[in-house]
Amino acid sequence: MAPVNNDDFRRHAHDIVDWIADYFEELPKQSVLPDVAPGDIRKSLPVTAPEQGEPFASIMSDFERIIMPGITGWQHPGWFAYFPANSSPPSVLAEMITAALGQQGMMWITSPAATELEMVTLDWLVDLLGLPPEWKMAGPGGGSIQVSASDASHLALVIARQRQSAPTDQLVAYASAQAHSSLEKGARVAGYRHFRSVAVGSDWAMSPSALADAVGEDCGRGLVPAFVCSTVGTTGTTAIDPIPAISEVARAEGIWHHVDAAFAGNAMICPEFRRYQPGLDEVDSYVFNPHKWLLTNFDCSVFYVADRKPLLEALQITPPYLRNAQSSSGEVVDYRDWQVPLGRRFRALKLWWVIRSYGAEGLREMIRSHIALAQDLVARIQASPQLEVVAPTPFSLVSFRHVDGDEATDAIAARINHSGHSYVTPSVIDGHRFIRVSIGGANTTAADVDRLWEVVSASN
Amino acid sequence: MAPVNNDDFRRHAHDIVDWIADYFEELPKQSVLPDVAPGDIRKSLPVTAPEQGEPFASIMSDFERIIMPGITGWQHPGWFAYFPANSSPPSVLAEMITAALGQQGMMWITSPAATELEMVTLDWLVDLLGLPPEWKMAGPGGGSIQVSASDASHLALVIARQRQSAPTDQLVAYASAQAHSSLEKGARVAGYRHFRSVAVGSDWAMSPSALADAVGEDCGRGLVPAFVCSTVGTTGTTAIDPIPAISEVARAEGIWHHVDAAFAGNAMICPEFRRYQPGLDEVDSYVFNPHKWLLTNFDCSVFYVADRKPLLEALQITPPYLRNAQSSSGEVVDYRDWQVPLGRRFRALKLWWVIRSYGAEGLREMIRSHIALAQDLVARIQASPQLEVVAPTPFSLVSFRHVDGDEATDAIAARINHSGHSYVTPSVIDGHRFIRVSIGGANTTAADVDRLWEVVSASN
Repeated sequence: MAPVNNDDFRRHAHDIVDWIADYFEELPKQSVLPDVAPGDIRKSLPVTAPEQGEPFASIMSDFERIIMPGITGWQHPGWFAYFPANSSPPSVLAEMITAALGQQGMMWITSPAATELEMVTLDWLVDLLGLPPEWKMAGPGGGSIQVSASDASHLALVIARQRQSAPTDQLVAYASAQAHSSLEKGARVAGYRHFRSVAVGSDWAMSPSALADAVGEDCGRGLVPAFVCSTVGTTGTTAIDPIPAISEVARAEGIWHHVDAAFAGNAMICPEFRRYQPGLDEVDSYVFNPHKWLLTNFDCSVFYVADRKPLLEALQITPPYLRNAQSSSGEVVDYRDWQVPLGRRFRALKLWWVIRSYGAEGLREMIRSHIALAQDLVARIQASPQLEVVAPTPFSLVSFRHVDGDEATDAIAARINHSGHSYVTPSVIDGHRFIRVSIGGANTTAADVDRLWEVVSASN
Repeated sequence: MAPVNNDDFRRHAHDIVDWIADYFEELPKQSVLPDVAPGDIRKSLPVTAPEQGEPFASIMSDFERIIMPGITGWQHPGWFAYFPANSSPPSVLAEMITAALGQQGMMWITSPAATELEMVTLDWLVDLLGLPPEWKMAGPGGGSIQVSASDASHLALVIARQRQSAPTDQLVAYASAQAHSSLEKGARVAGYRHFRSVAVGSDWAMSPSALADAVGEDCGRGLVPAFVCSTVGTTGTTAIDPIPAISEVARAEGIWHHVDAAFAGNAMICPEFRRYQPGLDEVDSYVFNPHKWLLTNFDCSVFYVADRKPLLEALQITPPYLRNAQSSSGEVVDYRDWQVPLGRRFRALKLWWVIRSYGAEGLREMIRSHIALAQDLVARIQASPQLEVVAPTPFSLVSFRHVDGDEATDAIAARINHSGHSYVTPSVIDGHRFIRVSIGGANTTAADVDRLWEVVSASN
């Protein structure tokens, strides 16, 4: 039946490895963004599937001719847009193996290795990031790999909801007005009818007194505060919500306190940045994404809970075809009970491979180098009378604008994004346009930031 | 910073390709199941991460020595457990490229190629499987790739909930008593407080009159029926719920009608099996998993909606940092609005690569060969006075038991699972133990079923 035998696979896979290594080599010389208009790729593809199988060479050739022109430079050293989704050669190696093994890690019995390697690797990260030791698998808590921080935050919202006996329609979820859109979306998906965007201060961090006021008002109206999210490193400007003050409000009302550190959590591998994240021993759940800034390619989002009991109570269901002796014994972890889907890929392998390849030292060095590049860029902006930084820069996201306002700011962004070598995301805060420069590519160096700066300074 | 340069990557990736091709060659000669006890792998790994980066050779050696002994044979030709998660060489090739490109397909602008290839490939599948043409992107509906059928069913439950103005606590979801556990779990996650397991008939398919009765009773109690799932090919026995009769009940009460064809939907690539799936033009959403039985490795679950409006209304939220000209123009699809998470891998590439590599003909041949193997096994069971088939076998899952009852049935399952060459999932239906033989491995042949049968017949 199979038109592809193993010798073919071996030959084609070697071809693809060379193609990938060439791509990595060429990428820095290519334009960050593709030059395609909506519909270009779609109309280059046939509207019906082939009836007969086609040779590898034809597929590869169409891939290069039709698909590649619509590929964006997420791994390009000049990618300063959104947040990084940085990857690395060791992560790609491990993903090759993950694809080949085709494991389904839904239960211990369906892949003991995928399950136990995940437990060990996420325990490692508790120490590496200086997180509360109770979050390790030997404690009351534990970690699991989710697809994305959106999934993890949605899950936290579901657990928070399931703990309440009040009707769902009375529950309220809170997050800062600068929180990621996945909080509002997750609340909606989880069935919350009340979501409050809490006011932020001049540093764009949540105001705990505004939170306390909102909670008090809601209680007065007969609603039930159920969930609050603190963000460490908001998407807009990497603002840092005051976790201890928010915990105080949460504790008083029995509110589930979730922390979204999707991007900035990775920086905690360097002890000097942990001062931005105090008070984690009082929170209920936490998410950060190694697929953003820890050289591990998407998807790899790590979700910790301080206590796994409410998590399991919310998610555990066992039909007869999933029963097995090991699960019934209670001596194994079945990760299907830690997530919404049943199936799961072997994602711990790449995390383990990356940590071993770079070591804690190598990962710290990468984080520090990006943050140093950002601080250097901030200094150049501050020395430019025409430009102003619009938010603090605790990590490696630089937010700035032109003093002449939106039009001048947008003109700079347009010049950067038409340069071919650099790409940024313009955004809006407090009604004003600004430019986000997110530094986190695996291969981004001072030369890349210099090139970006040349465009910025030439625009003044 | 990077201890891994591109020349290293090229060399190591070639090594891994050879390792993978060797693994594929050796796999059929290996035991299906690993010989490990809970904790074995965990205790072989250090409790802390390395401080310094380590060479590829050390990592690879630990991978082979510690991780591989805990890997299960999901791709082994003797894997007859659960449902298949079948993969193929072309799918692995495409996954290598997906890992290397590191695309984030959340919006058109973040990866035009990932977005448009997904649109085209899912349109192809509408024709390949004989689904309603309105589900194509040019129609009112459309398709998207989700992580798993659990995610897709959960999403359908969320859309169904969002359409209702009644309080969430009054909504009711229905599925057959033989539906996959992800329906009950998805309903709970989506906040439904009422989930009804509807009675099945002697063929284990949902009884439409039992559904009508349950709906009537709930309406009488002031509850609001909001969602019903028909399953084509239940997990227990591949029973087929009567879609047209269920649609009639759903239509009368304005209930969202979702179809879970996770496994069996793949068989519809062969026109002769479409008689098992009549009436799709009346349903609201549909899921099937190419990662189960279409040679495309996990994760790749395809979710169609007949009308994308309620889907987008349930999920669309646009913060400033995701705004862009192309999205605002409305001329592009942003797949983030079709799913719970924001980020998404470039999963369409492997689906496209597989369809082109095998062609519709090759995929049909695979499905037909598995179903023929199953029918042949059924004939052997029926010819054995000691054995009985416990459910119809429309596809390639054979469900049987020993006439002497549970103990004798379990003894057969134990012998199979200790054989080393075959693996099945024992389950329970109607209070009785039975054995599921799920035939769907990419390399499973008559010889593999013969080997399984030798153990079964020797057990009589």
